Amino acid sequence: MTQKQRLLVDSSDDDISDNESRPGNGNLIINLAPEEGDPDGAGNGAMPNNQPVFSLRRRKRGQSQYESLDYDVCENVLWTEEHQKIEQRTTVRKDFARWIISMQIGIGTALVACGINIVIDQMSFLKYSFLKREVDQNVLNGDLSIPYLYWVLTNVVPVMVGATLVAYVEPVAAGSGIPQVKCYLNGVKIPRIVRIKTLAVKAVGVVTSVVGGLAGGKEGPMIHSGAVIAAGLSQGKSTTFRRDLRIFEYFRDDHEKRDFVVGGAAAGVAAAFGAPIGGILFSLEEAASFWNQSLIWRTFFASIISSFTLNIVLSAYHGLSSFRYRGLFNLGEFEPLPFEYYELPIFILMGVFGGMSGAFWNCVNNRINIFRARYIKSRWARVLEAAFVAAIGATGACAMAYSINDCRPLGNDPTLTPVQLFCEDNEYNAAAALWFQTPEATVKALFHDPPGSHKILTLAVFVLIYYPLSCVTYGLSVSLGIFIPTLLVGAAWGRLTASFVVLAFPGSSIFVHPGKYALIGAAAQLGGVVRMTLSLSVILLETTGNIGFVLPIILTLMAAKWCGDYFNEGVYDNQIKASKVPMLPWHVDPSLRQNIAEDIMNQPVVCVRRKEKVNYIIDILKNTTHNGFPVVEDAEDGVRENGKLIGLILRSQLVVILMRSMYIETSRFWRDLVTIQSFRKEYPRYPTIEDLKISEDKTLRNYTVDMRLFMNPSPYSVNLKTSVPRIFQLFRALGLRHLVVVTRENRIRGIITRKDFLPEL
Amino acid sequence: MTQKQRLLVDSSDDDISDNESRPGNGNLIINLAPEEGDPDGAGNGAMPNNQPVFSLRRRKRGQSQYESLDYDVCENVLWTEEHQKIEQRTTVRKDFARWIISMQIGIGTALVACGINIVIDQMSFLKYSFLKREVDQNVLNGDLSIPYLYWVLTNVVPVMVGATLVAYVEPVAAGSGIPQVKCYLNGVKIPRIVRIKTLAVKAVGVVTSVVGGLAGGKEGPMIHSGAVIAAGLSQGKSTTFRRDLRIFEYFRDDHEKRDFVVGGAAAGVAAAFGAPIGGILFSLEEAASFWNQSLIWRTFFASIISSFTLNIVLSAYHGLSSFRYRGLFNLGEFEPLPFEYYELPIFILMGVFGGMSGAFWNCVNNRINIFRARYIKSRWARVLEAAFVAAIGATGACAMAYSINDCRPLGNDPTLTPVQLFCEDNEYNAAAALWFQTPEATVKALFHDPPGSHKILTLAVFVLIYYPLSCVTYGLSVSLGIFIPTLLVGAAWGRLTASFVVLAFPGSSIFVHPGKYALIGAAAQLGGVVRMTLSLSVILLETTGNIGFVLPIILTLMAAKWCGDYFNEGVYDNQIKASKVPMLPWHVDPSLRQNIAEDIMNQPVVCVRRKEKVNYIIDILKNTTHNGFPVVEDAEDGVRENGKLIGLILRSQLVVILMRSMYIETSRFWRDLVTIQSFRKEYPRYPTIEDLKISEDKTLRNYTVDMRLFMNPSPYSVNLKTSVPRIFQLFRALGLRHLVVVTRENRIRGIITRKDFLPEL
Repeated sequence: MTQKQRLLVDSSDDDISDNESRPGNGNLIINLAPEEGDPDGAGNGAMPNNQPVFSLRRRKRGQSQYESLDYDVCENVLWTEEHQKIEQRTTVRKDFARWIISMQIGIGTALVACGINIVIDQMSFLKYSFLKREVDQNVLNGDLSIPYLYWVLTNVVPVMVGATLVAYVEPVAAGSGIPQVKCYLNGVKIPRIVRIKTLAVKAVGVVTSVVGGLAGGKEGPMIHSGAVIAAGLSQGKSTTFRRDLRIFEYFRDDHEKRDFVVGGAAAGVAAAFGAPIGGILFSLEEAASFWNQSLIWRTFFASIISSFTLNIVLSAYHGLSSFRYRGLFNLGEFEPLPFEYYELPIFILMGVFGGMSGAFWNCVNNRINIFRARYIKSRWARVLEAAFVAAIGATGACAMAYSINDCRPLGNDPTLTPVQLFCEDNEYNAAAALWFQTPEATVKALFHDPPGSHKILTLAVFVLIYYPLSCVTYGLSVSLGIFIPTLLVGAAWGRLTASFVVLAFPGSSIFVHPGKYALIGAAAQLGGVVRMTLSLSVILLETTGNIGFVLPIILTLMAAKWCGDYFNEGVYDNQIKASKVPMLPWHVDPSLRQNIAEDIMNQPVVCVRRKEKVNYIIDILKNTTHNGFPVVEDAEDGVRENGKLIGLILRSQLVVILMRSMYIETSRFWRDLVTIQSFRKEYPRYPTIEDLKISEDKTLRNYTVDMRLFMNPSPYSVNLKTSVPRIFQLFRALGLRHLVVVTRENRIRGIITRKDFLPEL
Repeated sequence: MTQKQRLLVDSSDDDISDNESRPGNGNLIINLAPEEGDPDGAGNGAMPNNQPVFSLRRRKRGQSQYESLDYDVCENVLWTEEHQKIEQRTTVRKDFARWIISMQIGIGTALVACGINIVIDQMSFLKYSFLKREVDQNVLNGDLSIPYLYWVLTNVVPVMVGATLVAYVEPVAAGSGIPQVKCYLNGVKIPRIVRIKTLAVKAVGVVTSVVGGLAGGKEGPMIHSGAVIAAGLSQGKSTTFRRDLRIFEYFRDDHEKRDFVVGGAAAGVAAAFGAPIGGILFSLEEAASFWNQSLIWRTFFASIISSFTLNIVLSAYHGLSSFRYRGLFNLGEFEPLPFEYYELPIFILMGVFGGMSGAFWNCVNNRINIFRARYIKSRWARVLEAAFVAAIGATGACAMAYSINDCRPLGNDPTLTPVQLFCEDNEYNAAAALWFQTPEATVKALFHDPPGSHKILTLAVFVLIYYPLSCVTYGLSVSLGIFIPTLLVGAAWGRLTASFVVLAFPGSSIFVHPGKYALIGAAAQLGGVVRMTLSLSVILLETTGNIGFVLPIILTLMAAKWCGDYFNEGVYDNQIKASKVPMLPWHVDPSLRQNIAEDIMNQPVVCVRRKEKVNYIIDILKNTTHNGFPVVEDAEDGVRENGKLIGLILRSQLVVILMRSMYIETSRFWRDLVTIQSFRKEYPRYPTIEDLKISEDKTLRNYTVDMRLFMNPSPYSVNLKTSVPRIFQLFRALGLRHLVVVTRENRIRGIITRKDFLPEL
């Protein structure tokens, strides 16, 4: 009982609304039944009207502002009625619709990815061509302050546009979106995360961030995009555009929607990395508990279609010369990379180093973000901060290009816009080349440039600048991902390692290809930062296109993960923890392992009777924040809390019942018409009780709601003595939102939600 | 209520043993407490002794002879006691032990795989060298009957050895073992499937089958081997060798064992195909419901270690020249295979054809096996049948080599033992080459031989012989897998397709590389026969080592699966269905979709009271076949079946309780000593009630067992009205064995086991 704070009855609480109808924000008016529909209303006014019958407040409220998804299907009478009416034909059509939607998700995700990619491509090319021209013009008189200013400007302006959009229009579009998608797949409702508006801000935000030269990539946001597209397409309506196509109405519940989002996230990975199998594994690592074969299949299908569409569109864009743009990002075709088995220990050591380096990155990034949350609160400050970081980036780049003299003959390097700077004719500045393109192009260059393309000093300075820069960047109020900067840092120090190995063992230069070490370094750094090993292995394998390299990559990633896990958690998990999302981890918190249901449950439970007065319902809806109310029968002494559990009803259902006046007394007006559609219509943004304008009429307030029609008649329940690990297992395996705790007599004693598994803060 | 046959009280049943102690087969004697430990025994003899108190018989018995695994951990008082005693250090040690075992599983599986591989390699080389010499010697005088006889002999003798072993020693070692492993992962106990003896027979059986030239491979059996090794290593004891190392005792339950078997199966796939990721996905496709991250990790680890060990050992065997034996079977290094996008429709068509061809194969194979089950029952008949098929194979090969004149110049083809036959000097017979090696080597040859290595006629005849041959072979009483023959048939018709494409579009010969078409054909045929698409895609990708080919392979496999599923199920599912294993499918059977718990549950339920007399326990153990008995309290009118559910106790637990005399009256002799170890010691082969020699002493028979100490105090239960799909979901997600159906008052009404989800036969 000491483990958790409990609900306490606190009748002195001051902000309880005394059942007065609220003016102003009520935009829905309860459609009350006409007076003649009230045969026995007047005689039932036993309950005093203006006194709160009930006043509970959840002390824990505020511990987490996130709610769960209702993944568990509420199989109530209305649902059963609908199901019994459904013919074989409809089932087939529904199944078919699922496949069609999966295809659309794949195509949509790929198209958005292509659009973003092409815009970034064009704008970056313009930007760097312009800068190069300026540099070339001004380098002769030795004054590079003008190009420097131009660079700062071309960095700051786009970044400010993006940051303003994110800060003022849709803050949830900040960052990569991967942690949010992970939470959604885990069963947590993150507000506005799958809206079209979020997608729009994200798309523009990513373009501006990458064009603005921030240390970020467009891959993470692609995964988020896929999730939004999936959620949007599967619902056949958009709240942002206020359009309802009236199709796919049967997919309008959390269960179906989440299943499509799984596919969308996978399609996003497929589009970003050309890794359809990696996409499935990515979704799997989060959502493993809720899988079934047809879901795997549809997810796979969406991924394939996404990769395929992207391939076609990008191939067309690049002139149909080849057909090998499997993803936005590919590491380029690697030569079959042979590795010697005595290189494996080096790779494992690199993994260990990557793990430590990643853990340190996470730790610093976490501190910076805590600092941010505390001191950089106002929107304009966040915009300015982003602009400042963008300027810093340009400054670092210029300083490095200016001060390091690393000239290389032209022609060896596939860099698009080689800058001559102070080099001889027919040479280019290798230090400047690292900066004069998108980070993505630089990663590719590090993987594929021939041996000896960079001085050791160049790479070392680059790492020293880019590592802190990427660390400061992630967490800004801009949309960007973390994959590319992390790969970049890793590739740079990987290449550096190759140089050292060659220095240490001069004879080894024949087989120590720096590109191979760059790849291992990139894997190690990425593994150290994000720690998603299985899906990451597959993503990297699919991206490199070289499966013979599977063993070194996996060994490196495992070393990086183990080493990193010794210090802290992955960057996404850090972020999720910091935002107090009640995500169900893979295993129950060790501090709860010895506990039983009694220890973690919330009590007393607010219950409703099978037949309940409107008055009481309004009361509990207004005075509690609970989302689920057990339905009881045979309450001893009339105390609801002692009743026998016969069902569970959700807040959203009660609100709709009130809104549509589905009372026993008025049932002849609606019973034949009401179906599960009436509830589905309001999904996903059910009105709140405050949105309803509630009549003060005593007669109406004494009308009765019969819960049996609406409640879930078989809610999951456990005994008081059930162990917490066992309950946790139930939650994870079934994606539960509420679990009722009962005695051996089936009397309600408490209720458990996913928040109760969070360790004490 | 019409859906299922029910338990019926049938007291006229004739083979109920009247509580008489059984002579003969009882090898355990109940260690009865001395008389002085019986303070109130004499007064309690209210129950008549020689009359069966209870006589139920399950009419459904025999519908399936398989039992479920107890994947659900029984968290009883003893378990809790043990858990509370466990220190932090022990938990860490246990976790560490899991990793060590996973590593051992990887190494063990790889070593067994290497051993089998090397023996097959050596023996095949000897065999085919000998045959080639004979052919070369006899071809001059034109009489090939001697080599033919030798061939038949070298086929028949090994096959007879293998078939005899399988038929007489361990019939469960027949076939590939994949269906059995799938069932085990799904939660069904297949007797003797994970015993060392089975592994031994399987290993010898595979060697003899492949050396004997049967149309089979060693890959499927590798997966089974991995499973056996995992089960053996994780238990630290072997029943076959009667050795108990007294280590890893805490892993001796179905839950832990099954988790290790997941890793073993994955390690088997990794060893067989060099596909560690494919291995995980293979395990996943069956056992997805029960996954958690640490399990994924350990499985991954076992796979990697397995692939790695195999690589080292085989590299050492082949002279350490290279380090690229990732799996027993690899398709050889493919040149980067470019494909043109207008080839994709051809590939999809090939997928469709593969689906049809595979479905037809399955259908015929199924009929053959039904025929077998009906008419070839005796062991010697099965051995003779295998020998006959082996002889047929040799005959077909000889006939083909003799009659087809397909001479090719030497040197182009990597065949190890080219046969000249009637060809000119410096030529070899391409038709004979297909047969003069293991099927595996032939698959490689078909993938890598240069264009034009075979006549169209050669390939067509080969397909026509090998297709029915493989169809007859699978289901024989020998150990072999189905992957290789299926790939071989597919590769042959794939290569044939390439020839036709070149004939149809003469200009296309530049890019239509027959190896590419062989690969697609092989994928199509395999997809059509086994239908495991996701894991198969990854396995094939990892085996070809060419990830650029992912799209064609996936499209082909999906086409094959969809097309094949239109006709029938995959070969493994067919087999599982035929053997009536109560495997939980991915979705509930459509005929049960509208039902509720009441409709499928078994009733009346045999219950025990919290305190129960020995007499009654012996009675129900002898007279029912149930494996789980709900424990009740507060039975109305003293009728147990009306009691309130307070727990669940397993048959195995009751037997151990009787065996160790854990009675209330004798508790001072054992209560301080008894721990969960007493039960674990008997795992997995608990004695049956018939194994116990039970005293007839009335006093002893009136002793009492207190169930509270042993029972699972929080069994899962559902309400009478819960829908079957919801219950099914519970079963799949939690790996349940028993689910109790209760009323709103928590009174027992029925019990559901996984057999109740099987559709009516």
